[in-house]
Amino acid sequence: MASDGFRPLDEKLLVEYLKATPILAEKLGNQFDKLEIKEVGDGNLNFVYIVISPSGSFVIKQALPYIRCIGESWPMTKERAYFEVTTLKEHGRLCPDHVPEVYHFDRVMCLIGMRYIEPPHIILRKGLIAGIEYPLLTEHISDYMAKTLFYTSLLYLTTTDHKRAVAEFCGNVELCRLTEQVVFSDPYKVSEHNRWTSPYLDSDAEAVREDNILKLEIAELKSKFCERAQALIHGDLHTGSVMVTGDSTQVIDPEFGFYGPMGFDIGAFVGNLILAYFAQDGHAINGNDRKPYKVWILKTITETWNLFYKKFTALWDEHKDGTGEAYLPAIYNNPDVQLLIKQKYMKELFHDTLGFGAAKMIRRIVGVAHVEDFESIKEAKKRADCERKALNFAKNLLKERRNYQSINEVVSAMEQLDSQ
Amino acid sequence: MASDGFRPLDEKLLVEYLKATPILAEKLGNQFDKLEIKEVGDGNLNFVYIVISPSGSFVIKQALPYIRCIGESWPMTKERAYFEVTTLKEHGRLCPDHVPEVYHFDRVMCLIGMRYIEPPHIILRKGLIAGIEYPLLTEHISDYMAKTLFYTSLLYLTTTDHKRAVAEFCGNVELCRLTEQVVFSDPYKVSEHNRWTSPYLDSDAEAVREDNILKLEIAELKSKFCERAQALIHGDLHTGSVMVTGDSTQVIDPEFGFYGPMGFDIGAFVGNLILAYFAQDGHAINGNDRKPYKVWILKTITETWNLFYKKFTALWDEHKDGTGEAYLPAIYNNPDVQLLIKQKYMKELFHDTLGFGAAKMIRRIVGVAHVEDFESIKEAKKRADCERKALNFAKNLLKERRNYQSINEVVSAMEQLDSQ
Ligand SMILES: Nc1ncnc2c1ncn2[C@@H]1O[C@H](COP(=O)(O)OP(=O)(O)O)[C@@H](O)[C@H]1O
Ligand SMILES: Nc1ncnc2c1ncn2[C@@H]1O[C@H](COP(=O)(O)OP(=O)(O)O)[C@@H](O)[C@H]1O
Ligand SMILES: [Mg+2]
Ligand SMILES: [Mg+2]
Ligand SMILES: [Mg+2]
Ligand SMILES: [Mg+2]
Ligand SMILES: [Mg+2]
Repeated sequence: MASDGFRPLDEKLLVEYLKATPILAEKLGNQFDKLEIKEVGDGNLNFVYIVISPSGSFVIKQALPYIRCIGESWPMTKERAYFEVTTLKEHGRLCPDHVPEVYHFDRVMCLIGMRYIEPPHIILRKGLIAGIEYPLLTEHISDYMAKTLFYTSLLYLTTTDHKRAVAEFCGNVELCRLTEQVVFSDPYKVSEHNRWTSPYLDSDAEAVREDNILKLEIAELKSKFCERAQALIHGDLHTGSVMVTGDSTQVIDPEFGFYGPMGFDIGAFVGNLILAYFAQDGHAINGNDRKPYKVWILKTITETWNLFYKKFTALWDEHKDGTGEAYLPAIYNNPDVQLLIKQKYMKELFHDTLGFGAAKMIRRIVGVAHVEDFESIKEAKKRADCERKALNFAKNLLKERRNYQSINEVVSAMEQLDSQ
Repeated sequence: MASDGFRPLDEKLLVEYLKATPILAEKLGNQFDKLEIKEVGDGNLNFVYIVISPSGSFVIKQALPYIRCIGESWPMTKERAYFEVTTLKEHGRLCPDHVPEVYHFDRVMCLIGMRYIEPPHIILRKGLIAGIEYPLLTEHISDYMAKTLFYTSLLYLTTTDHKRAVAEFCGNVELCRLTEQVVFSDPYKVSEHNRWTSPYLDSDAEAVREDNILKLEIAELKSKFCERAQALIHGDLHTGSVMVTGDSTQVIDPEFGFYGPMGFDIGAFVGNLILAYFAQDGHAINGNDRKPYKVWILKTITETWNLFYKKFTALWDEHKDGTGEAYLPAIYNNPDVQLLIKQKYMKELFHDTLGFGAAKMIRRIVGVAHVEDFESIKEAKKRADCERKALNFAKNLLKERRNYQSINEVVSAMEQLDSQ
């Protein structure tokens, strides 16, 4: 046991912990004999235990002082659990339908107890690989993004509340630095952590490291990420942080939460859908060419942005005479100017979304952490072909994002590149 | 005496305070019989006492829990003294030649003891009104701006140090809110605090309140001010916060200090020089038409930006392989990309400077706090003519700032508008 009281759990220690923690013990009806415990952490950073007894269930997530998928050689503050639980609670308050409830938090143990998102929920990324359509996904995720981003921005908050929250989340700097490194830096330089489908993508990876214009654009996005406290973002909203069924969508794992640019969240989600799209050809088999599913992904991309736009601006309209201090009603006092500011705001957000989305794609192809969408394509040559298309699309998107006027244009460009 | 130990000083209480405070008493050689004390606070917010004895001198500045020039009806946190002294010390550490030394700080009393900037130093604004040329001003102020802004930005700091400092200065939110109100909001709406040279400027003031494009642009700047933590800015760097002689330049009064956009400081200084320029016709008398002086002001504007550019980018070059995490040398690893990022960064900073400068001009003509440059022009009609030129120039600058490629173009536009 470390001197600060922290202990990394294993299944045996976990049972002891549960017995000693009334709020969790009660959820299990104080029955420990028929306890089922399973460690399911398939993520990159932490340990996740599913705990089930005949009378109740929950999930226990513990942060260790290093990055799980790398090991103790890459230390990482376990304080991230505090920012994860703080973001979970705040986003859960704003959007309870799509965020698991927190039951328990132990700051010393860096341990969160939360609702078990039960089967048939699966990780969205796995659903996308399996070719499953989720008819309510765009309604749900746009709801989550619109509410969490709007209500934590200056469109809703006073400057006082906003700055207080910004200050608190400055404490999550270690996780911000990790993003800076793996998203905005490593892919653009030689780094021991980088990998790609070699030898097929060797020259593609090299081209990324030698592309001055790409470096110029990534610098602008990095500066926004580091300096612009726009809203309390999730910070890691890829398709592996979303659990789904046909009628439910749950967002987990906001340990990278901090006040940053909204486009980083929307871009993470959209960028990972684009990765899923370009991976489909690798999943095609005789009798299932994945063509209809690719159309569904394109529709999902389009609807995600369009529904987000609709819901976010509706919240803005609803609260335009509220507490938010960005646009005072006494100044923005006629329909023309109200339309102008909204168009300007949403246009910048759209371009941020495309830029950050592209950055998140690039790093998944030539950086340290890859995605199962591509990794599950066993044949290297085939995988490389899919990845190259995605990479080329992302490079174009990052450089030319300001020339896209609508999400339809983005989707058309995807189809065009795909058909080449 | 308030229950928290805070007491507003008067001259008698000040002497008691000095006697009871060893570090200050020593500076006076413990001689209190020949003490000269003079309250000189001509500023808008605080009380400033000059204290002189035969063996030493200093200045005592105290923040009261309201805005001095308005009175107790406009409460304002006295905690601002803490942020003033913190910024004074940090800027003083980075640029000791142009920032007065801090001798003493009493957080309970909201009281700062600092170096007395002795005569013949006068407030720069008064020198500009008197038509005095300062040959070293641009060298000095560009030095101050380049050092304080560079060394507190991510070009020099690690993300960790930057975020820690950002968090601390989030505490100065009350002063940020004051700026939001008086710079970015009140001039663009009906407000009891607004005033202007009436009736001459009635329709000009109204036009500001009805200009949708101006409102769109001011919103963009306000959002940068509220959200973008670029560097530790002074926050109130007008020509009334600078004391000068022919060979010395001292920057005082950084109580609005926080992590904000660099262009807000550079713009404040440049914008107030532009106000000084358009006020000159109002100071012209028989035998002194102020024409050569106007040329000197234009040269001062040009040199301020150009020397800032030179010094700031020189610091960047000097430290490009240093601790700063914005542009890693392993990525920005060839002269072409190094030039590109510098040009992009400085271009955005230039346009921010023009925008914030324009915003600071507008608020001095139709907002709550005016400047002596115009106020000292006794004849209202003449004053209004000067102010209108400045206002029209500022409106153009705010709207068209992105079309200016260099400071020379700005100065040419000033001359052209002036000659109309
Ligand atoms: N509340 C939950 N309910 C059910 N499964 C969960 C829950 N939280 C996490 N998981 C499972 O654990 C995995 C890892 O969790 P995650 O929070 O993403 O950890 P990491 O931070 O290590 O990425 C998820 O992919 C999911 O399968
Ligand atoms: N260190 C100093 N040395 C000499 N005079 C000073 C000093 N600090 C302030 N003053 C004088 O006091 C005036 C008001 O000080 P300032 O710091 O600008 O207060 P405020 O915050 O109220 O604007 C200045 O204009 C200047 O004349
Ligand atoms: Mg995860
Ligand atoms: Mg819920
Ligand atoms: Mg995680
Ligand atoms: Mg002052
Ligand atoms: Mg002041």
